Amino acid sequence: MSTNPRKKWAYLFAEADPSRRDLLGGKGAGLAQMTSMGLPVPPGFTITTEACLAYYESGDQFPPGLWEQTVKALGAVEKALGKKLGDPHNPLLVSVRSGARFSMPGMMDTVLNLGLNSETVAGLGHLTGDPRFAYDSYRRFLHMFGKTVLGLKDEAFEETLEKAKARAKARTDADLSAEDLKALVQEYQVIIKTGTGQDFPSDPMKQLELAIKAVFASWNNKRAIDYRTFQGIPHNLGTAVNVQAMVFGNLGADSASGVAFTRDPATGEKALYGEYLANAQGEDVVAGIRTPRKISDLKKEMPQAYRELERMAQQLEREYRDAQDLEFTIEHSKLYMLQTRSAKRTAPAAVKMAVAMVAEGLITKEEALLRVEPAQIYQLLLPRFDETDKQRIIKRGALLARGLNASPGAASGAAIFDADRAQELGSRGESVILVRPETNPDDVHGMLHAKGILTARGGATSHAAVVARGLGKPCVSGCETLKVDTVARTFETDGRVIQEGEEISLDGSTGEVFQGHIATVEPKFSEEKDLVTILDWANQVKRLGVWANADYPTDAAKALEFGAEGIGLCRTEHMFFQTERLPIVHKMILAAAEATALEDEAARLEIEAASTEADSPIHHRLTEARKKVGKSSAVKDYHSALAELGKFQTQDFAGLFRVMAGRPVIIRLIDPPLHEFLPKYEDLLVEVTKLRITGESPKLLEEKERLLQEVDSMREMNPMLGLRGIRLSILFGAIADMQVRAILSAACQVLGEGIPVHPEIMIPLVGHVGEIKTVRERLEVVAQKVQAELKCSIPYKFGTMIELPRAALTADEIARYAEFFSFGTNDLTQTTYGISRDDAEGKFLLQYVRRGILPENPFQVLDRQGVGKLIRMAVELGRKTRPELHVGICGEHGGDPSSIQFCHEAGLDYVSCSPYRVPVARLAAAQAALEQRERDK
Amino acid sequence: MSTNPRKKWAYLFAEADPSRRDLLGGKGAGLAQMTSMGLPVPPGFTITTEACLAYYESGDQFPPGLWEQTVKALGAVEKALGKKLGDPHNPLLVSVRSGARFSMPGMMDTVLNLGLNSETVAGLGHLTGDPRFAYDSYRRFLHMFGKTVLGLKDEAFEETLEKAKARAKARTDADLSAEDLKALVQEYQVIIKTGTGQDFPSDPMKQLELAIKAVFASWNNKRAIDYRTFQGIPHNLGTAVNVQAMVFGNLGADSASGVAFTRDPATGEKALYGEYLANAQGEDVVAGIRTPRKISDLKKEMPQAYRELERMAQQLEREYRDAQDLEFTIEHSKLYMLQTRSAKRTAPAAVKMAVAMVAEGLITKEEALLRVEPAQIYQLLLPRFDETDKQRIIKRGALLARGLNASPGAASGAAIFDADRAQELGSRGESVILVRPETNPDDVHGMLHAKGILTARGGATSHAAVVARGLGKPCVSGCETLKVDTVARTFETDGRVIQEGEEISLDGSTGEVFQGHIATVEPKFSEEKDLVTILDWANQVKRLGVWANADYPTDAAKALEFGAEGIGLCRTEHMFFQTERLPIVHKMILAAAEATALEDEAARLEIEAASTEADSPIHHRLTEARKKVGKSSAVKDYHSALAELGKFQTQDFAGLFRVMAGRPVIIRLIDPPLHEFLPKYEDLLVEVTKLRITGESPKLLEEKERLLQEVDSMREMNPMLGLRGIRLSILFGAIADMQVRAILSAACQVLGEGIPVHPEIMIPLVGHVGEIKTVRERLEVVAQKVQAELKCSIPYKFGTMIELPRAALTADEIARYAEFFSFGTNDLTQTTYGISRDDAEGKFLLQYVRRGILPENPFQVLDRQGVGKLIRMAVELGRKTRPELHVGICGEHGGDPSSIQFCHEAGLDYVSCSPYRVPVARLAAAQAALEQRERDK
Repeated sequence: MSTNPRKKWAYLFAEADPSRRDLLGGKGAGLAQMTSMGLPVPPGFTITTEACLAYYESGDQFPPGLWEQTVKALGAVEKALGKKLGDPHNPLLVSVRSGARFSMPGMMDTVLNLGLNSETVAGLGHLTGDPRFAYDSYRRFLHMFGKTVLGLKDEAFEETLEKAKARAKARTDADLSAEDLKALVQEYQVIIKTGTGQDFPSDPMKQLELAIKAVFASWNNKRAIDYRTFQGIPHNLGTAVNVQAMVFGNLGADSASGVAFTRDPATGEKALYGEYLANAQGEDVVAGIRTPRKISDLKKEMPQAYRELERMAQQLEREYRDAQDLEFTIEHSKLYMLQTRSAKRTAPAAVKMAVAMVAEGLITKEEALLRVEPAQIYQLLLPRFDETDKQRIIKRGALLARGLNASPGAASGAAIFDADRAQELGSRGESVILVRPETNPDDVHGMLHAKGILTARGGATSHAAVVARGLGKPCVSGCETLKVDTVARTFETDGRVIQEGEEISLDGSTGEVFQGHIATVEPKFSEEKDLVTILDWANQVKRLGVWANADYPTDAAKALEFGAEGIGLCRTEHMFFQTERLPIVHKMILAAAEATALEDEAARLEIEAASTEADSPIHHRLTEARKKVGKSSAVKDYHSALAELGKFQTQDFAGLFRVMAGRPVIIRLIDPPLHEFLPKYEDLLVEVTKLRITGESPKLLEEKERLLQEVDSMREMNPMLGLRGIRLSILFGAIADMQVRAILSAACQVLGEGIPVHPEIMIPLVGHVGEIKTVRERLEVVAQKVQAELKCSIPYKFGTMIELPRAALTADEIARYAEFFSFGTNDLTQTTYGISRDDAEGKFLLQYVRRGILPENPFQVLDRQGVGKLIRMAVELGRKTRPELHVGICGEHGGDPSSIQFCHEAGLDYVSCSPYRVPVARLAAAQAALEQRERDK
Repeated sequence: MSTNPRKKWAYLFAEADPSRRDLLGGKGAGLAQMTSMGLPVPPGFTITTEACLAYYESGDQFPPGLWEQTVKALGAVEKALGKKLGDPHNPLLVSVRSGARFSMPGMMDTVLNLGLNSETVAGLGHLTGDPRFAYDSYRRFLHMFGKTVLGLKDEAFEETLEKAKARAKARTDADLSAEDLKALVQEYQVIIKTGTGQDFPSDPMKQLELAIKAVFASWNNKRAIDYRTFQGIPHNLGTAVNVQAMVFGNLGADSASGVAFTRDPATGEKALYGEYLANAQGEDVVAGIRTPRKISDLKKEMPQAYRELERMAQQLEREYRDAQDLEFTIEHSKLYMLQTRSAKRTAPAAVKMAVAMVAEGLITKEEALLRVEPAQIYQLLLPRFDETDKQRIIKRGALLARGLNASPGAASGAAIFDADRAQELGSRGESVILVRPETNPDDVHGMLHAKGILTARGGATSHAAVVARGLGKPCVSGCETLKVDTVARTFETDGRVIQEGEEISLDGSTGEVFQGHIATVEPKFSEEKDLVTILDWANQVKRLGVWANADYPTDAAKALEFGAEGIGLCRTEHMFFQTERLPIVHKMILAAAEATALEDEAARLEIEAASTEADSPIHHRLTEARKKVGKSSAVKDYHSALAELGKFQTQDFAGLFRVMAGRPVIIRLIDPPLHEFLPKYEDLLVEVTKLRITGESPKLLEEKERLLQEVDSMREMNPMLGLRGIRLSILFGAIADMQVRAILSAACQVLGEGIPVHPEIMIPLVGHVGEIKTVRERLEVVAQKVQAELKCSIPYKFGTMIELPRAALTADEIARYAEFFSFGTNDLTQTTYGISRDDAEGKFLLQYVRRGILPENPFQVLDRQGVGKLIRMAVELGRKTRPELHVGICGEHGGDPSSIQFCHEAGLDYVSCSPYRVPVARLAAAQAALEQRERDK
């Protein structure tokens, strides 16, 4: 950075270019803007962010020219007002405030009433005819200067004030007389002398110099650094400093200070909104000593100022083309504007404002799309607690605990401690909250029928959290104070015990758990007119398709309502977990290995026999092998179980096809390791150990021992990387056959009903082209056969998930056998990072993020450097082999705005996410397209 | 392929270009070569491999011109010999043999004596004056033609022959008279008529046509396809067909057939080696009906023919500049050469021949290096069973079982069923074979002290196999017939039970397990003069460094002896498993979480307090936190355990540094999940369940319950992807501190003894630059501190393993904090493929390879398409950031020749492998360099 002494470090508000927010900071730019519009802004000047950086570079010294320019700018202000800083007769007072490029509310420092000393305070009293006001201003200045500039603690000043009030028997500060305040000022000066070892600097120019330096320094205080780190604001921007003539809202009943919004930041309603305090300085409004009044009251109290404020608010909104957050002061009935900035707003307000502003012709539809945070609108669609009812119950002490806000929404219901019972009661229409130490795939049928899920363990991407978000159900996970006793069917927290059946309430947006019932409000998407409008606009702009992950017709219907254009992932195995199917699944799994071994042997011999003469020993062995197959009860069990499951699956898929009515439906073949469907090894081990010792029921023992052995032979060190995905379809081809048969049969059936169908069959976990070649060739035969049998022709596709690094690295080869790719970014992140999500989240990943080792949790926000590089590579390689390759993403990242932006940039065709995130994804996709346009300009 | 009718499909031996092995096949090229050298080769011609491919392309039809050219070439042969195919008076007989580019011994078909029918057989009898010979030739032809060309079964011919012998009361074929054979010929013709429904084709030209087609077809018979798949020979090469005038070794006592090697293929000794049979055709030598005689006997029997053979053998060896495998026939004392090809040889022979041929000036050193298979020489260095003793014991029925030949070498010792006892006995000097259902890291101390390892489960890259290969100890794994009962301390196989303490023997090179003792022979590297010579030449040629993975000074010394240039991987945690250290390790682990939490909290507060005033509440909290740290028994246990371990580790490292005397030693910081050092969860669960039911010893129950809880909180779903590697160094920094302190202390100590040291500290499992940045910065402080304390200066380096895809993808960022990379290709393969080696090998990976889904097991041969792509990327990105980055590999692939070739091509600086593979790697590295030179030409 140049420290050229001729460099301009300070700009009068009247001469600054309001568009140079980078140089002037947000506050300075706003003041310059308002000044240029002729609004009543007390004169002042801005010391630039460059000056701040130069100050740091010079080792905390003003750069050459800065002080001279400050003095000169101050002179211009003095001249404009006919007052002078330090003039005992006609003193100018100024405020010194920080103002960075990005808003950092409350993070940095402010000094008001600068310029007072024992001489000027008298002049101020004389000038205003109000010595009490003058001393009140002085004591405020001393306190603020002492704390902010000299680094003394609040407490000493506060305690002294309290003593003074006690002495004067004053109830509030306002009850202190001029004399009381004068005494207080002297005491404050002692505090400063004691605390710093030096006299309070009575020279106003010295005060100014120190205050500017203090503001510069505040850019790098711990609070400010932490805030920037948290918000992702760069640390090398520096802050500007605004020096501005004071106006006083505390000069009597015809004076006031306040804040105002041009539209209601909570609802978005177009009306001046805010609050003010008569006879007060700005900080009093925030301090909460007196309760501020609604801005509408100002209309009655000071109608002239109100009208002006309203006019200026509209003027500023038009100028900025966005809702503004204003600070103002009224001094003796005259309105002054002190700040304008873009207003923060809730999700409903953001949507309402954006649509309204388009209607008003203030902004374009494209701008409206950029005015809403995609992540925010997720909340708009979920049931939420009625706030009044929630406050009522909190007052009665109903808050039990806090956990992670794992999946938003709100629900009340009976606490139930196992999935079976949750399903039983839930399917009867009762409201149930499933409470578990943690959940696993065995619990899904219970989660399906529960209103909400509460777990003691597990992070934001634990099984419970992921499934709940997928289902759009509230979930509080990792609620660590909870002691869940599934045997006693109770949980305990903070000494309170909740029995099974007692009603509890979960707020998934805050992570709160309550005892008792809270009324909820459920939004209807179609009634959220403004949201529907915005999302219609989004569809006009976005390039990415938005599909949904849905396993059941009800999910699919929800997704369609939210605007999904297809099903990007139907996890067939979720259907296996339903209570009436699980015994069939067990039968199939326990017979699979033996049946497959026998059948594979026969098939192998058949091939061999085909090329040998009729009486070679091979033929004999083939006959023997076929006999074994024919006699095997495993083979019988295996195929009868598969046939039964096939019927269920056909119904499931037909249901999905009917709902989706011709839109693409991607169905994934079985993915999890088979042992996940069986009882847990550890549970069986305990059972068997008990039975062995007690000697009870030897028959049961024998049965359990056999099961234990089976489960033992199947369990894996690292199931994530074990026998799952396509590996199952290779080893147990009959399962995949059954699924493909069910998909095609269902498709034929629905097509017969006159409804078009577009099934796409997705093969998961491919790592090597040899795998997909083998499986696709086998399954094509099945698909052709089913169509021939049913005499129908289905426009189906085969494709694969890209969820292993090797699949991405060799995507050109894999694309030879895949008509579409779908990135499974959950597993791709796990393998690329070598991190097991289940293990890592609680044990080290969250700590990594907290300690800044990772910028964010890669399971929530897609890791562009690593995983993203593989995705780009796969898209490029895949399209090299097959230019028309259709590419999407179906991992959880498909619903995350930042990740969706990446998907757009990487050239994907669509994203697929849980139904409730479809609106989020539509908006994020539109924003990504708009940002692209901006870059392409 | 063009089927231009003018294309040349057939070449006379005399006109063919011997260098066109691709066109002529190996046999044809050899015949052309010998013919061009003027050796006595019966005339003939070769039909090209192109003709074979064209035949397939035309739908099993001869391409245009082929038959005409065949007839013409036959004419030339007839003219040369003055005989004619089918001439009843002067019949020419020919052989028709396949001959592919790569040798496929026994895989394809051959027909001898073609041209015989009822007329020519009489002519042949007349011509030779030996009607018996003529009918013998005819019946051989009918049998061979019937089987090979007409597809009939051997059995019918064999049975008829047996009956004929019975009828004639003949003991052998030779006892059958001309009349007997004549009758047999008629019976054979009936078999052919019955089997094919047609008469035997008596027209010799028809015979020839059918025979050529049969040879073409034999290229695609199942045996041939399986063989090529197994050997990695492409399927699209086709075979050539050689048609050659017959000569007869069965024309009486002055005739013979035989095979000869120019040098002994078993020992490499330079002397004619082989065997022959007088009065026999070539197939009789192989058939084993009569026992062939040693070639040296020929010298006495037919001195003239022998001298010629010897002369021609030398001539051919000079021509081919390699040992040859020859086929010859002597017809009435005249020698004919029928085949020459490069001789297959054993490992010792390959080495001896290569060195001798350089001495003889036959080949260059570079050529010598290419003549030895690197994989072979591994065997040269391991103890092996005395073959005589092994045969002796096999005869007595001592072979118990066969498993996988997981790690070569041979050992005998007492069967011992747990690691503790194996260590106890082994350390007393007793010979022990550790027998386990499977092994895990808990067993390493036992493996260290065992002579060999036998497991019932686990593949070629199971824990047992990998560790055994690392230790250079024989291992038979996956011996599935074994039922190991660790409680009863017995194993059973095939009905035989072996008690603990009984002596057994393992042959790790064959996978055999024997009952009883077998004497072993242990080679000494320095005495393997030829091998040492070859490896010296390798060092002159290779570019790659060859380092070794070694955890202990003894391993390091072995590695040095074999020529290692550094230690590429010292796994510090192996030292933790030693019996006297394990209790200390347990103490450390059980205290780690609590101690770290307390200390981290205090450290966090310390940082916060540094920027706040002295009496802020932060300081109070800091004081409290420090008090807690001071009082905590966990903190005390943690640090006292670490201090004790530190002492052990310092000794360990000092030992390594002394042995390596200034060569680089890469020490990896702790890598496995801490729970791997604790008792198994399942074992504790059973213990606790038992104690709960029996109610015995409540105190023990309490203790075990506490331990169970600890282990439960630490165990992981997917430990491979869990809290391990650098993640441990981040969460439990004190462990890494201890290790770095030990490394630097040991280095200072050894340097003080006057021995130079070059320690390199390797941080495992980095995935994100933030991780290595954090850890390296912390450990640099420790390293500096130790050196300052000990007043010494060590030339150390910090580096990392690249073993996660993300590390490879972001290697440019990671190289900012790493001075070296070492590819951990075991884990990199696991994560890139998404395959857990432990789970996959037995469950599906071997089946994948068997079914041809994967070309080979990626844990044995580096996967170039996937993992290799990441390696190339990482090398390029890493060197972009840090051009002097030193790059190696320390996964198991570092000892695999194909993978070493890849490492050379990818520009790595060195490979590191287990000590016993160092010679292999040296040779493979030299070969890679030579192949590079060839490509660069």
